Parts: sequence; C-alpha cells; structure tokens
Amino acid sequence: MAAAPLLDQLVEALRCLPGVGPKSAQRMALHVLERDRPGALRLAGVLQEAAQRIGHCRVCRTLTEAEVCPICADPGRDGRVICVVETPADVLAIEQATGFRGRYHVLLGQLSPLDGIGPEELGLDRLEARLAQEGVGELILATGTTVEGEVTAHYIGEMARERGVRTTRIAHGVPLGGGLEYVDRGTLSHAFEGRREY
Amino acid sequence: MAAAPLLDQLVEALRCLPGVGPKSAQRMALHVLERDRPGALRLAGVLQEAAQRIGHCRVCRTLTEAEVCPICADPGRDGRVICVVETPADVLAIEQATGFRGRYHVLLGQLSPLDGIGPEELGLDRLEARLAQEGVGELILATGTTVEGEVTAHYIGEMARERGVRTTRIAHGVPLGGGLEYVDRGTLSHAFEGRREY
Ligand SMILES: [Zn+2]
Ligand SMILES: [Zn+2]
Repeated sequence: MAAAPLLDQLVEALRCLPGVGPKSAQRMALHVLERDRPGALRLAGVLQEAAQRIGHCRVCRTLTEAEVCPICADPGRDGRVICVVETPADVLAIEQATGFRGRYHVLLGQLSPLDGIGPEELGLDRLEARLAQEGVGELILATGTTVEGEVTAHYIGEMARERGVRTTRIAHGVPLGGGLEYVDRGTLSHAFEGRREY
Repeated sequence: MAAAPLLDQLVEALRCLPGVGPKSAQRMALHVLERDRPGALRLAGVLQEAAQRIGHCRVCRTLTEAEVCPICADPGRDGRVICVVETPADVLAIEQATGFRGRYHVLLGQLSPLDGIGPEELGLDRLEARLAQEGVGELILATGTTVEGEVTAHYIGEMARERGVRTTRIAHGVPLGGGLEYVDRGTLSHAFEGRREY
C-alpha cells in the first residue's frame, strides 16, 4: 500500500511524452493493458534500449546508436554537399520531403552566447574540419527562420566563405518563425529546390 | 545494418499507443531522446512492470496488480451498494466525477451471445455470489447506453430482482450511444445522482 498503484504510476510516466495530458495518458494506459500487452512490452524494451544506447553520430551529430550514422556511412551519399540543420528532427523532415542525397551537420541548437551556446557547443569546430578535409563544394544552411536561426546561419556562412566554400540558404516557402519539422513536405521540398546563394 | 535503426524501431513501437500516428510517434521519440531520457527510462520500467504484473481484482475484476484492488480492500467503502460498469475506465470516470463510496463490478465487456460472451465471461456468477453473501441493498447499473449496454443492464436487472435486490440505472444526461469515459464530469455526476428504479 506504500507505493502508488501501478496503473497510476503508468499514467504518470506516460506524461513524459509530448502532448500527453492526464486524460490521454489514462486512455493510453488502459488501452495497452486491456488490449495490447505485447505492444506494451515491445515498447518498454525498445524505449529502454533506445534511451540507453542512442547517442550522436561522431561525424554529423544526428541521433544514432552507431558510432557513425547510416547517412554518414552510406558511400552512395554525396559528401560534397553538407546541409546544416538544427535538430535530428530536421534531418528526418528533409529526408522524408526532399531528394537530398548529400550529408548533414546537426547543430543540436542555435548560437546563443547568453546561454553559453557558442560555436563549440554546435560542433562548428568539427564542421570546419570537414570543410577543410572533404572537398565540400556546397554548404546548405537549413537552420530555422527565427532570429537565432538567422544569426546562426550568418555565422556559419561567414565561416564557410573564409574557406571559399559556396553557401546556400533554403528559402522560398518556409514560413517565418517556424521550425522545419512542422512544414509540410511540399513546402519544404520547394524551399529546398529554391535555395539560393547566401 | 541488419536490424532497423533503434530510432525507427522506437517510432514504430510508440504506435501501439491509441491516437498516435507516424508523425506524433516521431515527435515523441525525438522529444524523449533529446530532452527526457530519465523520463523515457522510467516509462520503460513502469510499462514493463505494469504489462507483466497488472491483472484483475479477484472481487470486482477491475485492473490491479493486487489480488484485491484498493477499492474492494478499503473498509471505508460501503459494501451494500455495488455499481456495475463495463470497463476499468468507467470505474476511474465514476471515481473522478462522483462522490460514490460503494463498490464495483466490472463486466469487462457486454453480453454478446453471438461472440460467445455470456454471463460467465462477464463474471456474473461472481456478482450473483456477492449479491447473496454481502447484504447488498442496491445494485447500480452503469453500463453504457448502447443497445448491448441496455441488454446487459436488463439481464443483470432481472438477476438482481430474482434475489430481491433493489436495482437502479444511471440516467439523466448520459448521451445516447456514448461510452461513460467520454462524458464530462458534471454530466456523469448528474446522471449518477439522478439514477432511478430500474
Ligand atoms: Zn552522421
Ligand atoms: Zn476490486
């Protein structure tokens, strides 16, 4: 009687998921317990393994359980084009919406000196090393269109220009102030195709 | 490279939750991995334990990891009133919406002879034994207002009448054709208070 009933614990634990309030957490808990225990056990196993084993790609910093992610490890991808995005969700959005066959650099944030997020926190030392070594011919800046996203793009653009690397910025159609992951595929694909010199 | 990447497995596994499509599964997976790994590990642990250990109360058949659920085990509850509901979700809805201090019988379904769901599958033998032993003075029929719910209520009402137990049916305000768990608290509370002889 000391600990809360397991059902209450489960409802509470489900609320770590985004967009899940008390009512939907309760509905989820009852649904899996009454109708899909195998699914619940599979989710429990995968969730634990993912939370323990998934880290960041040594090359591009996206989420992966491998040392080098499948995209960076794929010899069929074009290493001469690197697309800079803010989050792993942006990588998935571009992969799902566009025919992009280059590689990525994932910032895992935006420049924000006041919060202690400088070039090193965004892995820009590593990006600079890739620009120097890999014969990169184009750097696509696909950071968000927020002020911080623009400042970050500007900073990286300057860095690339100093190394003589052509820089483009995705443009048409991405709504102002929004994150890439919420843009529909058509708009994102269009913005990708319509990128221009930066 | 043989197995799908863990992130893909996680997105897929999250879809066992009701109302979670591919897009929200992806958002959930990325959210917990980027921002709440402790929450993900806690959820994994509780989910596994719940799926393995939660069964049905020996007395009322609601979901619980104990042999007898906290409501049935609570000496402060009034054993002379039993409320018959279809699902554990209905128990939670009534507990959260009303001041009911009696006990429950959870059918875990509705009478449906064509699907092989008869009185025994609904635990009515056990309910009948409780009516005989516990000095029950009122049986509240809170099954849904669907045709099957009404048929089930009618059957149980007859059973109670044969034993001379007073039977009531929750009434006012519960919309026709809906499950109890989707009714707002006020409506449900009102329907509960406004129950009448059945
Ligand atoms: Zn990578
Ligand atoms: Zn019980």
